[in-house]
Amino acid sequence: MASAAASCIFCKIIKGDIPSLKLVETDTVFSFLDIGPLSKGHALIIPKYHAEKLHELPDEYLPDVLPIAKKIALAIGAEQYNLLQNNGRLAHQEVDHVHFHIIPKPSASDDQGLVIGWPVQKMSMDELKKLHEEIIDKL
Amino acid sequence: MASAAASCIFCKIIKGDIPSLKLVETDTVFSFLDIGPLSKGHALIIPKYHAEKLHELPDEYLPDVLPIAKKIALAIGAEQYNLLQNNGRLAHQEVDHVHFHIIPKPSASDDQGLVIGWPVQKMSMDELKKLHEEIIDKL
Repeated sequence: MASAAASCIFCKIIKGDIPSLKLVETDTVFSFLDIGPLSKGHALIIPKYHAEKLHELPDEYLPDVLPIAKKIALAIGAEQYNLLQNNGRLAHQEVDHVHFHIIPKPSASDDQGLVIGWPVQKMSMDELKKLHEEIIDKL
Repeated sequence: MASAAASCIFCKIIKGDIPSLKLVETDTVFSFLDIGPLSKGHALIIPKYHAEKLHELPDEYLPDVLPIAKKIALAIGAEQYNLLQNNGRLAHQEVDHVHFHIIPKPSASDDQGLVIGWPVQKMSMDELKKLHEEIIDKL
């Protein structure tokens, strides 16, 4: 992924080639304010490794992500918020470098914060059990 | 939180008092298929500790969450998917025990998978820099 990393905006932010409103940095992750926020305090946490999707990221880049998400949630003082990590265009991923959003939800309004639609599927318990067996075989 | 934990449906699932379609279990987390899925393969990962929101969860319950999310994403064979963790009713949290959703997004349709609205706010760079300073002071 050398060429993809070379042109990656998040890799450039990590290296300091593009300025950012940095929050916390560790050996394995970097965090900063999103400059196109959905709400006041919207922050991003990115691993210091160029992988497009979560399942492609080596485990050694994972341990700092959630403790820092907690730390940022406390610092921004958000009582209600979403942690979101999108994989693929269909799933609303816009930059092809794994990133975790922390998005405060200050009110019930659809005007700010993450807006969520929840289309529950009709699956019978038999269908779910069959699917469960298929997944267990691959775990 | 003893009384909240006693009546918590996820605490009961962890203890086995309520059956579930279990996927992976470790010393600190438990995962299973969501029986009200947004798409085929929709799974949940929950820490074995009763905390309502992410920032209330002790760090020792965090390390297994993301490696297991990766493992499940690979097992369900989702190429495109969302990882989502909601905190508070406004942020669409429905069960008051921290849980991480892995939700495959098989198509662009709003009929299945997580549906996302993205209301970008107008914030000037000056406003963002001021906010950044306020947050840095609290980190």
